[in-house]
Amino acid sequence: MITTDIAIIGAGPTGMFAVFEAGLLKMHCHLIDSLPQTGGQLSEIYPQKPIYDIPGYPAINAQELVDKLEEQIAPFHPGYTLGERVETLKKQGDGTWLIGTNEGTEISCKAVVIAGGLGCFEPRKPEVDRLAEFEGKGVMYAVRNPEAFRDREIVIAGGGDSALDWTIFLANVAKKVTLVHRGDTFRGAPDAAEKVAELAKIGAIDLVLKSRVVALDGTGHLEQVSIIGADNQTRHLPADNFIPLFGLSPKLGPIENWGLNIDKSAIEVNTMDYSTNVEGIYAIGDINTYPGKLKLILCGFHEAALMAQSAFKYVYPDQRLTFKYTTVYGITELA
Amino acid sequence: MITTDIAIIGAGPTGMFAVFEAGLLKMHCHLIDSLPQTGGQLSEIYPQKPIYDIPGYPAINAQELVDKLEEQIAPFHPGYTLGERVETLKKQGDGTWLIGTNEGTEISCKAVVIAGGLGCFEPRKPEVDRLAEFEGKGVMYAVRNPEAFRDREIVIAGGGDSALDWTIFLANVAKKVTLVHRGDTFRGAPDAAEKVAELAKIGAIDLVLKSRVVALDGTGHLEQVSIIGADNQTRHLPADNFIPLFGLSPKLGPIENWGLNIDKSAIEVNTMDYSTNVEGIYAIGDINTYPGKLKLILCGFHEAALMAQSAFKYVYPDQRLTFKYTTVYGITELA
Ligand SMILES: Cc1cc2nc3c(=O)[nH]c(=O)nc-3n(C[C@H](O)[C@H](O)[C@H](O)COP(=O)(O)OP(=O)(O)OC[C@H]3O[C@@H](n4cnc5c(N)ncnc54)[C@H](O)[C@@H]3O)c2cc1C
Ligand SMILES: Cc1cc2nc3c(=O)[nH]c(=O)nc-3n(C[C@H](O)[C@H](O)[C@H](O)COP(=O)(O)OP(=O)(O)OC[C@H]3O[C@@H](n4cnc5c(N)ncnc54)[C@H](O)[C@@H]3O)c2cc1C
Repeated sequence: MITTDIAIIGAGPTGMFAVFEAGLLKMHCHLIDSLPQTGGQLSEIYPQKPIYDIPGYPAINAQELVDKLEEQIAPFHPGYTLGERVETLKKQGDGTWLIGTNEGTEISCKAVVIAGGLGCFEPRKPEVDRLAEFEGKGVMYAVRNPEAFRDREIVIAGGGDSALDWTIFLANVAKKVTLVHRGDTFRGAPDAAEKVAELAKIGAIDLVLKSRVVALDGTGHLEQVSIIGADNQTRHLPADNFIPLFGLSPKLGPIENWGLNIDKSAIEVNTMDYSTNVEGIYAIGDINTYPGKLKLILCGFHEAALMAQSAFKYVYPDQRLTFKYTTVYGITELA
Repeated sequence: MITTDIAIIGAGPTGMFAVFEAGLLKMHCHLIDSLPQTGGQLSEIYPQKPIYDIPGYPAINAQELVDKLEEQIAPFHPGYTLGERVETLKKQGDGTWLIGTNEGTEISCKAVVIAGGLGCFEPRKPEVDRLAEFEGKGVMYAVRNPEAFRDREIVIAGGGDSALDWTIFLANVAKKVTLVHRGDTFRGAPDAAEKVAELAKIGAIDLVLKSRVVALDGTGHLEQVSIIGADNQTRHLPADNFIPLFGLSPKLGPIENWGLNIDKSAIEVNTMDYSTNVEGIYAIGDINTYPGKLKLILCGFHEAALMAQSAFKYVYPDQRLTFKYTTVYGITELA
């Protein structure tokens, strides 16, 4: 069991900066994120793109900002649980909170900060008949262990980088790879698209363009994939695996079940301290909503600062808080 | 007459960043500050000190942050009126605002943003009998033109850098320089303090320690300064000029007379858009107050962003506003 002053759900820029603001007030934090890395949308969606509206940076690449934040919070030695999704949040008899992840990790804390952005990133699922039924029985949304596909017949769907890259890679592993794509050009990198066309030409893979997978069939495990083409004809293909790779989309998910007031997939907060309707739980960054809300990185920073002042009073009700400038008092490393 | 979309009173970090946020929405801004340079408290009070709580900068010197902000807002070509203090703010018949400075400059604008920080920096005045009476008649709070003191007998008061520096400089210009200081050690730079002691030793100046100026006398113009020492004895000194140099302190000043709701020297605002009780006037940064308010640079940035969205609707009531990410749409230089 991990114990900390403040557990922060979401290690995007807002959650990261919250470690700093809490650290200034000598509160220790633990960051939890379902992604394997920090940075939230910045690292996951646009790491190499420049951001122009970070105050004091005429331009900064998203990943560089994340790296700077990581450096800025290092003196406060936050704990990290990455690659795990928070599923449960429960108040204990002694007033502390207990957080549980999908991997069984437990974190006990005095206050909870939800900095969950747009939610957990989850695979975008296509509309395919009986899709849910075969999840884990031939249908998978990511390739974890390529060896699992050795000598199998697999169907990949999608037109982006992951679909192209895994098609190329698995061509050497699987018995047969079929790539199904709605369009006839690819969104992914041009050289990957070329390589795929080449593999199709020499018969190393099957390329099915202007088509989509519409139905699955099998007894117990997946056995067949049905594909409809531009000509409206349906073809049936034998398949051990179907791998739809349509990217990730964020979902609020478990956060919806914690008794918080939610308005259009965002948590309602009081702008005085970004507290939610449940005492001891705060919500900052893209995940919250209030009159005038803008989903901007710089707004999350402000929200983190005001949250920390309030969380301090909640975590240490008996201690006095004096407002200090970093320039005058510097920062003190946490143990 | 200068015309602009938004006049920003105060060119501290908040006012500067407001130019950026307004510029993203294609509104032109004009910055006005009573100080001769941009940067507000950062440039005036602690230019060489590191700030640790600017998000994305583990440490940045105050002046460096101001320089970065200047670079960031340059594409939006703000107008500048520096070294002038805004005295009047009046609504015109056509709904625009007319701003007037102490130098007679007039600025016409559609919306007004007050980013006045702690107010105008004004000289700290010592308690001296008849001080106000001789202002402009021998009493001055800054040295503008050293030649004005040639062959004069002057008394300087203070223990900081300006008092030391001007004592050293004017020793070569004036007929006689007396430096009066409350303590017997100086707050100013050690080498300047040494130089002053040396000048006193060779009789180039008079150094009066553990003493303070208590009264002024003269008919029409200043003629005499009275000094009380540690021994409680009062001495009278002939003097053409008295120059108290006790630093600058901020005063809300004229802003108090514009019909705005003020609470403890700060302007009350609505956190939805940082608007004041007067339509078309916003207040951001250190000068405003609301529940949870923290006088931090990063909070002013957030306030500027929300203000700009609202000001846009006020300035261009007929245009539709679409929220855009800088990463996706970049920034477009203003004419
Ligand atoms: C293409 C693009 C361009 C953008 N450009 C700009 C720009 O120029 N300027 C700007 O200010 N903003 C921009 N944004 C928006 C900016 O990225 C967001 O405002 C910012 O990422 C919000 O930060 P956050 O920390 O609140 O949330 P996020 O960055 O979304 O991070 C939230 C994290 O919480 C995690 N999480 C959620 N639920 C759970 C759970 N139950 N368990 C574990 N982890 C969980 C998620 O995995 C995620 O990593 C852009 C966004 C995009 C997509
Ligand atoms: C020693 C010190 C250390 C600090 N350390 C930190 C820190 O580590 N982190 C942090 O976030 N903050 C810190 N601060 C606070 C920070 O400096 C302020 O929050 C910030 O300067 C506020 O910016 P602003 O633009 O709102 O106002 P200001 O910087 O005060 O600028 C306001 C400007 O408005 C002008 N003005 C006012 N009235 C008028 C008028 N009528 N006409 C013309 N001009 C006018 C003034 O001349 C001034 O230049 C510190 C402050 C001090 C003094």
